[in-house]
Amino acid sequence: MSKLLDDAVNELSKLPSIGRRTALRLSLHMLRMDVQQVNMITESIGKFRNNIRYCSCCNNLSDNELCPICEDLSRDRSIVCVVEHIGDVMSIEKTNQYKGLYHVLGGVISPMHGTGPSDLKVDLLLSNAQKNEIQEVILALSTTIEGETTQFYITRRLEEFPDIKISTIARGIGFGDELEFSDELTIAHAIHNRTKIAKYE
Amino acid sequence: MSKLLDDAVNELSKLPSIGRRTALRLSLHMLRMDVQQVNMITESIGKFRNNIRYCSCCNNLSDNELCPICEDLSRDRSIVCVVEHIGDVMSIEKTNQYKGLYHVLGGVISPMHGTGPSDLKVDLLLSNAQKNEIQEVILALSTTIEGETTQFYITRRLEEFPDIKISTIARGIGFGDELEFSDELTIAHAIHNRTKIAKYE
Repeated sequence: MSKLLDDAVNELSKLPSIGRRTALRLSLHMLRMDVQQVNMITESIGKFRNNIRYCSCCNNLSDNELCPICEDLSRDRSIVCVVEHIGDVMSIEKTNQYKGLYHVLGGVISPMHGTGPSDLKVDLLLSNAQKNEIQEVILALSTTIEGETTQFYITRRLEEFPDIKISTIARGIGFGDELEFSDELTIAHAIHNRTKIAKYE
Repeated sequence: MSKLLDDAVNELSKLPSIGRRTALRLSLHMLRMDVQQVNMITESIGKFRNNIRYCSCCNNLSDNELCPICEDLSRDRSIVCVVEHIGDVMSIEKTNQYKGLYHVLGGVISPMHGTGPSDLKVDLLLSNAQKNEIQEVILALSTTIEGETTQFYITRRLEEFPDIKISTIARGIGFGDELEFSDELTIAHAIHNRTKIAKYE
């Protein structure tokens, strides 16, 4: 009907979970918004995508050379938690429980998707290990074949630093999850790694 | 964490049905897209919102002075279907059954939302009625109090053209809808306005 509308719908529907119907609904809604408000949306996205930088230390999102976490002197510099994506950092930060640093790999080794070890920020992790006072590396990668492969690869590469302790996050049944709906591997792992309940004495 | 990301999330979550979680997911996805692709999205939205025009005849979306429907000489200029929003035109056009023209009011009379008759394109409809060869006006407004009020108002205003037939779209049980789940008003209306079934002779 209108080429401008068509273009907007086509472009918007390239985003995940936004189909043509949603894209049309969003476009028509923006037509009822102030021009200025819509310009603010597009500008903030443009600035974000064009000007965002990555922390030179941990590869996390950053507006400056170093991200706020690496800059924060109150954080424990002896522990580094290795994650796949930026979103993982946010998930862990939300718990307010972890006070160490992070290292964002940018993915996992996946020959299927053409991601090799050189596409990940493993060398940066090793050079940090060389320079810094790292005592423990926590691997918080997914439990997929790709994640396990990456975990194995990083463990091997870190062998040159025998003083660094390597650990992985605990696997088990999540709080609020039911046994009935958990998969066999998780249940088996949860039983094998059962923890003793402290008795009142 | 990053002000640029925060801004993008804040702005995106102003759109309907996009909460903060979805806005964050969309932002992180755009980070994995090419800068150029993201710029195409923002540019197409910006162009759409800033350059879109409304048809000077029917108030439909348009890239030019007249919309493609008003410009199409094969359409029946004696019938005008009055709708609330641009989306309604698209819905009716998709049926491929209606060959007349449209008139987009831009809303309905709603004192609650501060929309009075002067905020709608009723005068444009009347001036079209004066100039053109309109024989029938179909009112396809919602069956809310606001819709009924608007219908009543337009009917009154059109009284100065006694030759123009005014009709409204048929109400009834939709194809595929079940009686059990239809509301009383619709069922009552559907029974009252029952249509005779032609018998084979």
